Amino acid sequence: MTLTRPFSQSKLQGWPGLIEAYRSYLPVTEETPVITLQEGNTPLIPVPTIAHQIGGQVEVFIKYDGLNPTGSFKDRGMTLAISKAKEEGAKAVICASTGNTSAAAAAYARRGGMRAFVIIPDGYVALGKLAQALLYGAEVLAIKGNFDQALEIVRDVAAKYPVTLVNSVNPYRLEGQKTGAFEVVDTLGDAPDWLCIPVGNAGNITAYWMGFCQYHQIGKCDRLPQMMGFQAAGAAPIVQGHPVVQPETVASAIRIGNPASWEKAVAAQQASQGSFTAVTDEEILEAYRLLASNEGIFCEPASAASVAGLLKVKDQVPRGAKVVCVLTGHGLKDPDVAIKHSNNQFRQGIEPNIEAVAEVMGF
Amino acid sequence: MTLTRPFSQSKLQGWPGLIEAYRSYLPVTEETPVITLQEGNTPLIPVPTIAHQIGGQVEVFIKYDGLNPTGSFKDRGMTLAISKAKEEGAKAVICASTGNTSAAAAAYARRGGMRAFVIIPDGYVALGKLAQALLYGAEVLAIKGNFDQALEIVRDVAAKYPVTLVNSVNPYRLEGQKTGAFEVVDTLGDAPDWLCIPVGNAGNITAYWMGFCQYHQIGKCDRLPQMMGFQAAGAAPIVQGHPVVQPETVASAIRIGNPASWEKAVAAQQASQGSFTAVTDEEILEAYRLLASNEGIFCEPASAASVAGLLKVKDQVPRGAKVVCVLTGHGLKDPDVAIKHSNNQFRQGIEPNIEAVAEVMGF
Repeated sequence: MTLTRPFSQSKLQGWPGLIEAYRSYLPVTEETPVITLQEGNTPLIPVPTIAHQIGGQVEVFIKYDGLNPTGSFKDRGMTLAISKAKEEGAKAVICASTGNTSAAAAAYARRGGMRAFVIIPDGYVALGKLAQALLYGAEVLAIKGNFDQALEIVRDVAAKYPVTLVNSVNPYRLEGQKTGAFEVVDTLGDAPDWLCIPVGNAGNITAYWMGFCQYHQIGKCDRLPQMMGFQAAGAAPIVQGHPVVQPETVASAIRIGNPASWEKAVAAQQASQGSFTAVTDEEILEAYRLLASNEGIFCEPASAASVAGLLKVKDQVPRGAKVVCVLTGHGLKDPDVAIKHSNNQFRQGIEPNIEAVAEVMGF
Repeated sequence: MTLTRPFSQSKLQGWPGLIEAYRSYLPVTEETPVITLQEGNTPLIPVPTIAHQIGGQVEVFIKYDGLNPTGSFKDRGMTLAISKAKEEGAKAVICASTGNTSAAAAAYARRGGMRAFVIIPDGYVALGKLAQALLYGAEVLAIKGNFDQALEIVRDVAAKYPVTLVNSVNPYRLEGQKTGAFEVVDTLGDAPDWLCIPVGNAGNITAYWMGFCQYHQIGKCDRLPQMMGFQAAGAAPIVQGHPVVQPETVASAIRIGNPASWEKAVAAQQASQGSFTAVTDEEILEAYRLLASNEGIFCEPASAASVAGLLKVKDQVPRGAKVVCVLTGHGLKDPDVAIKHSNNQFRQGIEPNIEAVAEVMGF
């Protein structure tokens, strides 16, 4: 079904989705069909127990981008990439991805009346990881080859057929993602002193920096943040200065050995006087539990790298600084890690009376 | 750790969470410590392909309450119940629940510096269902007894110790949930003609009706909607007029045989000239897939009962009506159903070259 945008959309009050909200800063025209799920406008949540660990009157906020419609920040880039694909007459989109990208691509493509193809290597991934994309109607094709071959094929298909490539090389992805920075400034009233962010493919740190610079240039913020990028220790090519052949970390969304936006990310770090730091899986999981059990915020393990990193370099945080940590995905995206790594306060076999229960509770 | 509310909260622009947004309509005072994750303000998304199935220039919107912080509408009631518990000096909260309630209770209680206890029958539930609550720091106690005994124990504990019961009997839960109706009116500009909603424990239909009536009374809306409640056929006590001893449905969040808010829900239906209708699991799953693969909206199976119901009674929808369907939980809450019930377009063993892939794609 290829209905154009709903006739009623324009009459609704409230947040219209990030393309309409930031139209003048994005590469769209009146002709662009806006494919939206009202993504963006995610909470900026104060986390006082984490600020307390740092001290020095530092304020810490979580940009909880896991509350986008498909559960990750990928929706920001995808609403724009898919809208532009539709504008350009694409009948389908294609990507090589097994995670958040394929889910977002499928949701927006199907909403826009297009087919969504996901190419993966045979045997590469469990069905569970793809369940969300499949439910959104993705057509998943597993090839007898490796991930590099999958990437080559999606590029070839996009070059030869009316199919738009929505992997990270699609330039509209970063344009959409930069709106995260706009929202941070719009909510805080200025840019923060530090922007802490997980770094995998390095697209999001690049996009945030684009957003802050664009807002700064037109006077929407008075300052620019230091961009603090955090990689998982087992997948830290930028920190180490060379690609990692077999990246390994519990933080699957940043398990990347050779980031697509490496140079742009380094440029952002240097221009902002920021830094790249590696955090161990143990530090990531500790922050992951801390966020959930002290602050009520459940994120993907990869997301927790931003908070783990902040706590790791907390002695460097300027007194009274405002710090924003980006959480890129919702914890429900990765239930297996939650089952395996909670502090598991699960007591069984308790007698069914108030005395026994009260005793276990400590009364 | 028991820090009070973050010092910085008041300086933030944007949505402050539903207690601050609707303070004058809620039972809070200046003394109430507001425990919030900026819940509420969830999207109202047009779904043109579903409207198209109904015809007659009907407009259909999804109230996507799965985008609350813990992934379900339970956050609306819990922010208020937990804030009031904190105000009343509770050191802990308690509930008997294995699903969305326990996750929301744990998240808000821990954020408020309180302990969160969840009482369940031994062997009642897989660890996966409790993973979210456990990660939020819930202390889960499994008793050698059944669910009725668990309910009795939580009531007794709450009566005897400084522990607040946050099961559905807590009156603040519905007060918080009624804000869903406020948001629908604030976004649409008036109440819709129909409000379609899944009915399990019947609290949410009761709360929405409270909200619409309150807004109507003070002139925030000119009309009241017909309340259209939908139950799963295997768990349809209100439709059948008697409790169901062994309710059974794929829609686990509404698998309830004897709803707590039965009478209030019937009162809302009668006063609004609405109706209760049962939908089969097949109809629920069909709507579940339709929402995801045509509209890009992924919900819990129970949530899809509202859309399944609307499509079932579509011939009764008045011409040109505005219809809102409430989706109560995010699809990521129940990944097993997604794996089992997607249209599984997963092709394996494809040769790794463009010709083979293009052929499968239909080019």
